[in-house]
Amino acid sequence: MPEFQLTNKNRVKRHPERGAYDKERVYQIIDEALICHVAFVQDGEPFVIPTLHARHNESILLHGASSSRLMRHIESGQRVSLAFSLVDGLVLARSVFSHSINYRSVVLFGHGEKVATDDEKTAVLERFTERLMPGRWADARQPTALELKATSVAVLPIELASAKIRQGPPMDDERDLGLPVWAGVVPLRQRARDPIRDPQQQDDIPLPAYIERYIQDRQ
Amino acid sequence: MPEFQLTNKNRVKRHPERGAYDKERVYQIIDEALICHVAFVQDGEPFVIPTLHARHNESILLHGASSSRLMRHIESGQRVSLAFSLVDGLVLARSVFSHSINYRSVVLFGHGEKVATDDEKTAVLERFTERLMPGRWADARQPTALELKATSVAVLPIELASAKIRQGPPMDDERDLGLPVWAGVVPLRQRARDPIRDPQQQDDIPLPAYIERYIQDRQ
Repeated sequence: MPEFQLTNKNRVKRHPERGAYDKERVYQIIDEALICHVAFVQDGEPFVIPTLHARHNESILLHGASSSRLMRHIESGQRVSLAFSLVDGLVLARSVFSHSINYRSVVLFGHGEKVATDDEKTAVLERFTERLMPGRWADARQPTALELKATSVAVLPIELASAKIRQGPPMDDERDLGLPVWAGVVPLRQRARDPIRDPQQQDDIPLPAYIERYIQDRQ
Repeated sequence: MPEFQLTNKNRVKRHPERGAYDKERVYQIIDEALICHVAFVQDGEPFVIPTLHARHNESILLHGASSSRLMRHIESGQRVSLAFSLVDGLVLARSVFSHSINYRSVVLFGHGEKVATDDEKTAVLERFTERLMPGRWADARQPTALELKATSVAVLPIELASAKIRQGPPMDDERDLGLPVWAGVVPLRQRARDPIRDPQQQDDIPLPAYIERYIQDRQ
């Protein structure tokens, strides 16, 4: 199935032309976002917490300390909603009313299942590490049995999802087009800067090529 | 009061050394974040939606179309939780287990009140516009009565809040410090790129100095 089911829950109502339900675009946004925001209900009240994530096929992977409130909640199988948001630019229109931002976002719904075995956990940690920095897993010290025990991992099959995307120039009213106000977009992008070596490390270990490449790709 | 009250709801339990409750730091993070994520409960289920925000003293301001689900929910006075997250860098430790990111985040709790008069709405829209791009309000066409009617504004007094902040180098175990693995931080920062003029506009309107300054400050 190339598209998510469309229900009242995930339908983009405001600006329906910005809605997208195809899995390819939804997954691209999830994969490009470094963090997500997880909402859950506790004692009838809403909570939202930012966290790192990864994706495996049609599921979101979350991890954290075994003792954390968020992980215990997700592992208990209660419903959660996740948002992934990328800001691409400021949209400066001629009228105040038409100001906006360019963005790509995904909101999804599901509930978690605990990942239990050490092998499963190790596979998930590899995915997290490689997502943070491709090439890092093979270089860094692998997790011990104790470290795996201290880590909780939850897999969250995506039940419903939708993307909302705004790109391109301002959309001023026809009658405003002639106003003498500069109109356009200021693109924003997350970039990497020069790496800072741990002050506890001597400089006899050169910066690995995979880190250099990561930074170059994000100049 | 320079600090938010500390309760079981806003206390940072995991890594308590990363918790901060002073209003100055909380407000700095809220003000630097371009968007926030709003969580609310509907029919017992959690929802999370990204949106633009502004701050006025001890309150968060939200705006949107009068018809939007989020605005109607917030205006109805039901409880919401908001998160503001800034990613500052990748923390590459010697061990997989100690990998992390540097970040500054705020989670807060409250419930909204509708802003009703046109004057109040106009003041809030000025704050949003100036936050998006300082100097823009005086340059762009001001909102009409009809546009104000189509816009909902909610003010959300902050009841409880906490910041969680991780900065600095990796924190590897003592026994890992001698491993031959490059360790350190790759800083990340949101930067602005060259502005793109609306293709519907002739180039007889020069780029305003305030936009040029905004971009230069974010190179």
